[in-house]
Amino acid sequence: MKNLFKCKIICLFSTLLFIQVAIAQSNASFVPAASNITGAEYPKVSDDLRVYLRIKAPLADKVQLAGSLLPTSDPVDLKKDADGNWTLITPPIVPGFHYYWFLVDGVQVNDPGCDTYHGWAKPTSGIEIPTKGEDFFMPKNVPHGDVREHWYFSDITGKWRRAFVYTPAEYETNPDKEYPILYLLHGSGENERGWSLQGHMSFIMDNLIASQKATPMVIVMDNGYAEAKDPAAYPQNAASWNSRSAVLADVYVKEIIPSMESSYRIKPGRENRAMAGLSMGGGQTAVIGLNHPELFSSLGFFSAGGVSVDSVADPNAYGGLFSDGASFNDKIKVFWFGVGTEEPALITKNAALKKEFEKKGIKATFYESQGTAHEWHTWRRCLNEFAPLLFK
Amino acid sequence: MKNLFKCKIICLFSTLLFIQVAIAQSNASFVPAASNITGAEYPKVSDDLRVYLRIKAPLADKVQLAGSLLPTSDPVDLKKDADGNWTLITPPIVPGFHYYWFLVDGVQVNDPGCDTYHGWAKPTSGIEIPTKGEDFFMPKNVPHGDVREHWYFSDITGKWRRAFVYTPAEYETNPDKEYPILYLLHGSGENERGWSLQGHMSFIMDNLIASQKATPMVIVMDNGYAEAKDPAAYPQNAASWNSRSAVLADVYVKEIIPSMESSYRIKPGRENRAMAGLSMGGGQTAVIGLNHPELFSSLGFFSAGGVSVDSVADPNAYGGLFSDGASFNDKIKVFWFGVGTEEPALITKNAALKKEFEKKGIKATFYESQGTAHEWHTWRRCLNEFAPLLFK
Repeated sequence: MKNLFKCKIICLFSTLLFIQVAIAQSNASFVPAASNITGAEYPKVSDDLRVYLRIKAPLADKVQLAGSLLPTSDPVDLKKDADGNWTLITPPIVPGFHYYWFLVDGVQVNDPGCDTYHGWAKPTSGIEIPTKGEDFFMPKNVPHGDVREHWYFSDITGKWRRAFVYTPAEYETNPDKEYPILYLLHGSGENERGWSLQGHMSFIMDNLIASQKATPMVIVMDNGYAEAKDPAAYPQNAASWNSRSAVLADVYVKEIIPSMESSYRIKPGRENRAMAGLSMGGGQTAVIGLNHPELFSSLGFFSAGGVSVDSVADPNAYGGLFSDGASFNDKIKVFWFGVGTEEPALITKNAALKKEFEKKGIKATFYESQGTAHEWHTWRRCLNEFAPLLFK
Repeated sequence: MKNLFKCKIICLFSTLLFIQVAIAQSNASFVPAASNITGAEYPKVSDDLRVYLRIKAPLADKVQLAGSLLPTSDPVDLKKDADGNWTLITPPIVPGFHYYWFLVDGVQVNDPGCDTYHGWAKPTSGIEIPTKGEDFFMPKNVPHGDVREHWYFSDITGKWRRAFVYTPAEYETNPDKEYPILYLLHGSGENERGWSLQGHMSFIMDNLIASQKATPMVIVMDNGYAEAKDPAAYPQNAASWNSRSAVLADVYVKEIIPSMESSYRIKPGRENRAMAGLSMGGGQTAVIGLNHPELFSSLGFFSAGGVSVDSVADPNAYGGLFSDGASFNDKIKVFWFGVGTEEPALITKNAALKKEFEKKGIKATFYESQGTAHEWHTWRRCLNEFAPLLFK
């Protein structure tokens, strides 16, 4: 309780500091955010990455900002002007893509200036805070691959499911060529559109492939949620992480992988198959990938807690996969861990993991995205670093 | 003014009637709408197609329903219960897909139970009211085509643009085959995702192609808005319909069509090219298609005012295209007009058009979608009737 109180005081102090900073610097030039819908004036972003938010709610008593734009966990109040507009100028925001929404007298309201994105398990507003001098994730004058909406029926869930499938530009003009495949998983509360919409994955891959940094590959982005039609087939508590992961693992092994390999020109075999995921998707990559080394030869974990130090130390975890370093290195060609420097808990965790891997002689790659947090820009950079290592 | 007052009285009366009907029938069984996000209990739909709406807003003074779910133009009040939930049970709703949102003390709030769709020029809630006994637009156990996200740079607008492109299931396994192409346009306030998301176009085409009712074809769904980078190149007032249509026509003729024909395996020539659009998209089909008979051989108008009786009567309109019936029929193989029976103004307009066509000896097909209004189910049925006529 004492710590909670301390945290609240710090939050309150931070909030007051935000407002003071905002007032002191409110003369800077603001331009509409790159992510705004056509013609929307607000939200605006300044040169020094402060965000100017505005929403009209003349009858409201209180309007607050919520989501993950600000690092505070408590909603922050906006201020009402004479025209019934509520405004807030934030302090400089960590570059990248951030979900947010307003609370108008406690009711969630998305910003009318933004499109909505599936985050926090619901459609939410999102804003792009520019990362200066970086354009690896932007469309360029290079050949562009397609992101395809692919529907298939899942017997395990008893439902139609939708995957998005990236095929590289050259796929169209090489009708006899087969391609290696990467399964790319989204995070908690997100869905199968996340990697192409928030993640800009197609532009990242187009640019990597055009500059010959990455091998042309097919990339599958499916939904990270799967509920069994017959829960009795999965002995664990249906609501538990293990059970949900077991259902998803089955959907991958029995449905998604076969559906992709029969629908697209995919090179067969584990050496042509990789999996990577962000946050929750990294946890799922551990459950699916480490339990099926006969299916995957490369695994990536972006801002994820999926591989624990305890499991690496445990000679029986994942069928003994970690018990022998040389044998592990022989099986898993790319074993990759990325994180943003603004994710301190994961930085610490990855350091412990690295030490444990070294002890066991397990080869792994660690990457830190400078100045970014638990959000899509970290994961864009992770993909940009991870994809070039695959299928070489 | 007198008419306006009369209309308001009728609206008020209708609203009161709705509420009475709702109260009288509130014991019927309601189930979550098919369009709800996973796990959302509300909105619900009853067997007799009434909708039960609910949103929590304990601090609000007034919550209303707006959009196009109800046929009234004025927002309709919800009623607050002891738990701070606001509810409304509507009278039976016309089957199909309807956009709506709440006004919470005047602020637009989307229903937390729905996904958002781009309608009314912003992300809005949408609900599917079941059309009993119809499944032509649902996914079935047939080969499925892909809907591909395709990016290209537009010199005319100075921007990257996104099109969605449907390729039939067999496209993947016939690497030497070329396909005819249909350009399919959305309505006002919508965007390039409308036809695949709200319109279910891929399922409609998969089903038609699998049952050999339609020729396998590629279908392009681009954005219906285009602003010139250099407005001086377009002499009309930049904000006018004519100018905006002229820019879009240029984007089609100089950029979209060439980009599609260089990116996909498309049969060349006007006889393999069709265009159709709904509402505003029908108007654009008239501007683009009738001005370019050298490019298109079939045109479809879904709930659209695009082709006017005056223009058909005018021997100079569209370069004299309508001046000779036999010559017109020789050029335009499928000239198709569809409308919902719940769109009285367009029913009247199409009747006048039919008469004028008969007078001129112009062959055209007219279709009426029974019991549907100016919404996506009318347009799904239009596509289902129109597509089988193409490229025969």
